[in-house]
Amino acid sequence: MKLENKLERVGEPVVEPAAFAGWLSETNEITRAFLAAGQIPGLLNIAGGLPEPATYPGPQIAKLAQRVIETHPTETLGYGPIEGLPELRNAIAHRFSTKNVKLTAANVLITTSGMQALDLLGKVLLNEGDLIAGQFPTYLGALDAWRPRRPRFRNMDLNAAAFDPFQAMKGAKFAYTVPNFSNPTGRLVGLEARRTLLAASRQTGAWLVEDDPYGSLCYDGPLPPNLLDLALQTGELSNTVYLGTMSKLISPGLRVGWVIARPKMISALTLAKQGSDMCTSGITQRITHEILKSDLIKATQSQVLDMYRRRRDALCAALNSYLAEWFEWEVPAGGMFVWARARDESIDTDRLFEIALDEKVCISPSSVFDAHGENRQGIRLNFTLNDEVKLTEAVQRLAKAVQRQLVEKG
Amino acid sequence: MKLENKLERVGEPVVEPAAFAGWLSETNEITRAFLAAGQIPGLLNIAGGLPEPATYPGPQIAKLAQRVIETHPTETLGYGPIEGLPELRNAIAHRFSTKNVKLTAANVLITTSGMQALDLLGKVLLNEGDLIAGQFPTYLGALDAWRPRRPRFRNMDLNAAAFDPFQAMKGAKFAYTVPNFSNPTGRLVGLEARRTLLAASRQTGAWLVEDDPYGSLCYDGPLPPNLLDLALQTGELSNTVYLGTMSKLISPGLRVGWVIARPKMISALTLAKQGSDMCTSGITQRITHEILKSDLIKATQSQVLDMYRRRRDALCAALNSYLAEWFEWEVPAGGMFVWARARDESIDTDRLFEIALDEKVCISPSSVFDAHGENRQGIRLNFTLNDEVKLTEAVQRLAKAVQRQLVEKG
Repeated sequence: MKLENKLERVGEPVVEPAAFAGWLSETNEITRAFLAAGQIPGLLNIAGGLPEPATYPGPQIAKLAQRVIETHPTETLGYGPIEGLPELRNAIAHRFSTKNVKLTAANVLITTSGMQALDLLGKVLLNEGDLIAGQFPTYLGALDAWRPRRPRFRNMDLNAAAFDPFQAMKGAKFAYTVPNFSNPTGRLVGLEARRTLLAASRQTGAWLVEDDPYGSLCYDGPLPPNLLDLALQTGELSNTVYLGTMSKLISPGLRVGWVIARPKMISALTLAKQGSDMCTSGITQRITHEILKSDLIKATQSQVLDMYRRRRDALCAALNSYLAEWFEWEVPAGGMFVWARARDESIDTDRLFEIALDEKVCISPSSVFDAHGENRQGIRLNFTLNDEVKLTEAVQRLAKAVQRQLVEKG
Repeated sequence: MKLENKLERVGEPVVEPAAFAGWLSETNEITRAFLAAGQIPGLLNIAGGLPEPATYPGPQIAKLAQRVIETHPTETLGYGPIEGLPELRNAIAHRFSTKNVKLTAANVLITTSGMQALDLLGKVLLNEGDLIAGQFPTYLGALDAWRPRRPRFRNMDLNAAAFDPFQAMKGAKFAYTVPNFSNPTGRLVGLEARRTLLAASRQTGAWLVEDDPYGSLCYDGPLPPNLLDLALQTGELSNTVYLGTMSKLISPGLRVGWVIARPKMISALTLAKQGSDMCTSGITQRITHEILKSDLIKATQSQVLDMYRRRRDALCAALNSYLAEWFEWEVPAGGMFVWARARDESIDTDRLFEIALDEKVCISPSSVFDAHGENRQGIRLNFTLNDEVKLTEAVQRLAKAVQRQLVEKG
C-alpha cells in the first residue's frame, strides 16, 4: 500500500488523545490552588519559600555574566560535561572537604537547581512501589519530584519520643531529611538524632539524603555538624548524599545546585542527568564559580541574616499579638519558615487556606507537606519575602480568616 | 528508648547500600565508551552532534547577559513561573502562529533544553511498559530520556515501502519523529509521509511528537511544512507536540528549548517540570528573548549555513575517495550528519567503533540509535564540529580502521 493511499481510512473516527501517566491524577488539588493564588491582586503571599529580591547581588552578577561569557565563550555557550565544569566541581569539593577527608570532583555533580537533584535521586533509586523514609512533615517539592516514580512513603517524625530510625529506614531505598531549619517546620534535627540517622543508614543500607538549602540562613547559631561532616569524621562519605544550592542565599535564577556523594552514586546520577537536560548551562555554572571565588557570599550573607532575623521577629511578634489564642509555634533559629499548629481540632487548615485567600493572604496548609495528604492541623508561614509591615498585616488578615472559620463551624 | 541509646546496635552489621533502579543496568555499554572517548589525546571526534564553537555569537550574548540582569534583576535572578517567562512564551507563540491559527502563551512551555522536553514527555505520558512508536533509527538522547520510564519501543521505518503508520501508532502513547534532517540519518520525512503521520495520530489517538532541532540547518532548500504547520492548516494543533531549541543554531550553553502543544498537554508538562527543575533560569530565558527580538538569528544562520555546507561537501568528498568501497550514503540536504550503511555484513559497526577509537577517530555506531540495540551495519558521521582538513583526515583514519577490521575477520 502506497503512503498516499493511506491518508484517509473510511470508518476510522478521530479518537481522544492517549491518556496521561497515572501519577498526574495523584497531584493534590491544593497544590494547584496554591499556584493559582499568585494571580490575586493585593494578595499578601506568606506561603512560598521565596527570598527577598532586594538581596540578589544584581549589579555584581550582571558584570560577572558578561565577563565569563567573554572570557570562556566555548565553555559557557557550548555543551559542557554532564557532571558539570571541572573547576566548579573542584571548588565545591574543596569547600566541603575536612581535615580528615579530601573530597574530589568525582564526589560532586552539578545540578540544574536543588530540585533537579531530587528528581535525579528518584530516577536512580526508585522502582515503582519502592519505599522512601521521609522526615515528617516534609518538603512539598520533594514529594512532587518523586511522584512520577510512584514510591511508597513512610513518615519519620524525628522529634517523636518513640522514634526509631532503624525501624523507620529498614527496607527503604533512602531516607530524606532537611536537618537544618527543616521545610516546613523550621526546626533543627539535633546532634544525637543526626548521629543515629547516620548509624541507621549504615546498618540498613538506606541512602541518607541531606537536603541543605537553609544551612546558610542561621540567625541564632551555632549549627550542629551536617550529616555529611559527621560521615566524614568516620573517614568516608558512607551512604550520605548531600544536596546544596545557590538559590536561598544568592539567587534562585542561577538554577545551580550540587550533590556530594560517593563516586558510585555520582556516576548513576550522571547517567540520569544525561537524559534529563544533558548538562547545566555553562553560563550559570561559570557565574557560580566566580561567586564562590569572590567574597560575594560572605557580603550577601551578613546583609541577608540581619534582614531575615528582623522579619522573623516581626512575624513572631504579630503571631503573639493576633494568633496565640488558636495556634502554637516555636521561634525558628534559622531558615525561612514558622510552623504553627492549631491548638485544637476546631481548625481545619485546608479550609483555613481557602478563607485566608478570600482575606487576601496566602499560607501553606500542612496537608501539602504530608505524603498521605492527611495533616490538617498546621500552617507554614514564610518571613523572608515580605517586610515587617506586610508581615504584620498578613497575620492580621489570617486572624480574621480564623475567626471566620470558627463562625462557619458554629 | 531514647535516641542516645540507639547509636549502636550490637549484632547489626554495616550492609551494602540500597540498589539502584532497574533501568540503570539497561544502559548500553557503548554509550559509556562513547562518553569516555572524549578523553583520548589527538582524537578526531566526528561522533557527537556538536556545533562549531566559532559560530556562537559570544560578544553579543555577553552584552545581552549583562543588560538583561541589570534591567530585570528580580525576573532574571529570582524564581520564575514554571511555564517560563510570559514575554518569551508570547514571542514563541507569535513566531509559530499561522494565518489560520494564532497560538498563545497557553500553547507554549519553556524547557531547560530540548532534552528536558523529552524527559517531561516521558514523565507525563508513560507508565511502565507503555508503547512508543519511534522513527527508526532514532535519536540516542531520546532513548536515554525515556529509559527511566521503562517503555516498550516499536520501530517505525518511515522510508520502508511497506510502512503503515496506522498499524505502527495503534496502541502507542506517542509517535516520536525528527522530520527535518533526522538524527541519525540526516533524511527528510517527505510531505506525504508527514500528512499520513498526522492522520494516523488523529485516528489512533497517539500524540505526535515532532522534534525539530535541525530545521534551521537547511543547506539545499526548500523544506516541507512541519507537522505543526500541517496540523495548523486544519485549524487546530490536534495531537501534535512540537519541540524547538536554541542549541543547534545559536548556543547549547543557554539550555533553552520550548514545547508547542494544546493547553491540556502544556499543563501536564508544567506539573512535571515543577518537580524536575521548578523553572528555567530567568537569565538564559531573558537572553533568549532578546536574541529572538534581534536579528542575531538571521545573521548567525547565514554564516553557519555557508560553513556547514562546505564541511558537509568536504566530508562527502572524502567518503567518496576513501570509503565508497565498503559504505553507501546519501548527501543530506541539511542537519549535522551523514548516515553511512555498510555494503555487506563483513562489517560490524560496534567493532568498527572500537578499532576506529584505536585509530584516533570517534564515530557513532548504529546500535546506539536502535532501542533494541541490534543494528550493527551503519555509522553516523558529524560534519559540523571539524573543519574540512580534519574531516578528511578523520575519514582516512576511518578507512584504515575498516581495513583492519576486514583483516581481523580474515
